Amino acid sequence: MRATVIHGPQDIRIEEVPDPRIERPTDVVVRVLNACICGSDLWAYRGVSKRQAGQRIGHEFLGFVEEAGAEVRGFAVGDLVVAPFVWSDGVCEYCREGLQTSCPHGGFWGTPGSDGGQGEAVRVPFADGTLVKLPKEAAGDAKLLPGLLALSDVMATGHHAAVSAGVRPGATVAVVGDGAVGLCGVLAAHRLGAGRIIALGRHAGRTAIARSFGATDVVPERGEAAVEAVRELTGGQGAHAVLEAVGTEESMRTALSIARDGGAVGYVGVPHGGSAGVDIGQMFNRNVRLVGGVAPARAYIPELLPDVLSGAIDPGAVFDRTIGLDEVPEGYRAMDERTALKVRIAF
Amino acid sequence: MRATVIHGPQDIRIEEVPDPRIERPTDVVVRVLNACICGSDLWAYRGVSKRQAGQRIGHEFLGFVEEAGAEVRGFAVGDLVVAPFVWSDGVCEYCREGLQTSCPHGGFWGTPGSDGGQGEAVRVPFADGTLVKLPKEAAGDAKLLPGLLALSDVMATGHHAAVSAGVRPGATVAVVGDGAVGLCGVLAAHRLGAGRIIALGRHAGRTAIARSFGATDVVPERGEAAVEAVRELTGGQGAHAVLEAVGTEESMRTALSIARDGGAVGYVGVPHGGSAGVDIGQMFNRNVRLVGGVAPARAYIPELLPDVLSGAIDPGAVFDRTIGLDEVPEGYRAMDERTALKVRIAF
Repeated sequence: MRATVIHGPQDIRIEEVPDPRIERPTDVVVRVLNACICGSDLWAYRGVSKRQAGQRIGHEFLGFVEEAGAEVRGFAVGDLVVAPFVWSDGVCEYCREGLQTSCPHGGFWGTPGSDGGQGEAVRVPFADGTLVKLPKEAAGDAKLLPGLLALSDVMATGHHAAVSAGVRPGATVAVVGDGAVGLCGVLAAHRLGAGRIIALGRHAGRTAIARSFGATDVVPERGEAAVEAVRELTGGQGAHAVLEAVGTEESMRTALSIARDGGAVGYVGVPHGGSAGVDIGQMFNRNVRLVGGVAPARAYIPELLPDVLSGAIDPGAVFDRTIGLDEVPEGYRAMDERTALKVRIAF
Repeated sequence: MRATVIHGPQDIRIEEVPDPRIERPTDVVVRVLNACICGSDLWAYRGVSKRQAGQRIGHEFLGFVEEAGAEVRGFAVGDLVVAPFVWSDGVCEYCREGLQTSCPHGGFWGTPGSDGGQGEAVRVPFADGTLVKLPKEAAGDAKLLPGLLALSDVMATGHHAAVSAGVRPGATVAVVGDGAVGLCGVLAAHRLGAGRIIALGRHAGRTAIARSFGATDVVPERGEAAVEAVRELTGGQGAHAVLEAVGTEESMRTALSIARDGGAVGYVGVPHGGSAGVDIGQMFNRNVRLVGGVAPARAYIPELLPDVLSGAIDPGAVFDRTIGLDEVPEGYRAMDERTALKVRIAF
């Protein structure tokens, strides 16, 4: 089959790789129908996150079950499924608690020895613990498919930020980061009943999506000026819940600074700035909580799925370009240069 | 009157200062019956936290109302009261939410222009929002008085650590710090129903108190060895809830490292190590929360008081020395040299 392979910084190739096959009786093989490129893939693309030359990449996909191992109970050939961005055994203590990202048998798509999501097919370990079934008819619904694909990571991750930040009905929420995750954070906060949602961002296309997702205010400033702008909008107090969806030192500093005393920062941006942005003295004096981490998407998909199917939320609006597999290297370039927000790969 | 004054590092003196008087109609004057020296006072004593030469010091006290302003509603002359370690107006948004430490009209005893707790009397601003009434007969109960005094800070702060860390019935809890706050954290975790409480400490007198407060295990190791010891005690997982009651870089690093995935560090140690101990990458990968800060003691005293009065908890056991006002400089020395755990001042 053909799949996306990363050979080094800025070196993304489409190559012939071995066809996936059932290796353990709990595996299935999924024929990928839709995949996408994630903002976090760009850290590898830019060489900030190290990868072995020749490693697969991509961790968001949905498709049809093509083959199922003998011990798979929940899925049959022909089922349409979506995968969260990690696999997990579904039976350990962490999985039962809904923290599948800490499953001792879990793993991340594209790590050496596993298939990446940006390829024609994927061997899925622990299928019963990992996958979530979708209605088959959704496969032909061009309007619905992007939203379902967003459940594999960005929508679940935005929701994790909102839940971690303790978003409640009526709350004032601020979102740092205008990428797909930040925008999904806006949508998640709106879904949870936030009374006011302040989106930090200056890119017109993105702030338009933020507004369509429920943002009531947009703050184009950055750094100290952004902090002042949010404080001004909130009577000097800051936001009850801040969603941090970038992961840099500056974004973390901003996020903590715009949280209201007693409030929380729900952070889901993969940290790339060390801890220098975590102003522990400020957190201490104002009782600001820092909550979040890698989102257990598997725990959230069953809750979010009905709202996507009903049309109550459409996180698929974050995709502004659809390409074929051959165009994936160009897709990375476009996202890296911010000419695309989020790229969908249709097979 | 006579009160404790700090003139510089290691320079604590007892001096004649102006008698406090009612300045605003919401003030009361409290004649101090018991006060104490706090571990956090040692930061000033050591010169790590700056103080103006001649500034008052001490923030924990109980005593009798000697005079009450015209607008004071809840207290009358002769009432026995305990003060939390900050005053607060009791009516603002933050006070009504139970975050009195963020009250815009609040302040910390001993800041310039206010009385410190380690003196014969204290002018208490916003008495109705600040003080909590105690049964008068407690004043003559030598066994009860230390426990009531502990409510002003250390017990409330230990409780804040436990609540912030999300201690639940049956939870495995680890406590970093064997000072009075850490020990009160053990007591608070026990009171909240923790199933197992691991106290990190090596000082025999302190670990004995920890055990009497409910600790089931004691880990004398430090640093990496402590992390390994706690992991071994918890089947490799770490503790659901970790209480951090020191505030240094190393203690924070240890606390985060011994938290179970999906768990929390409730931190109440005044931060003195910057953010270098906050390993954000580890927090992210394992979804470990960092929650806490300066404890809103005023919010917790009404909940904890009945358990002290009934004898269900006796946080007064943290006091291992009682002195008169003249001996306060010696009390600081003893706590600094760790020959005393916590010193009570009886007037």
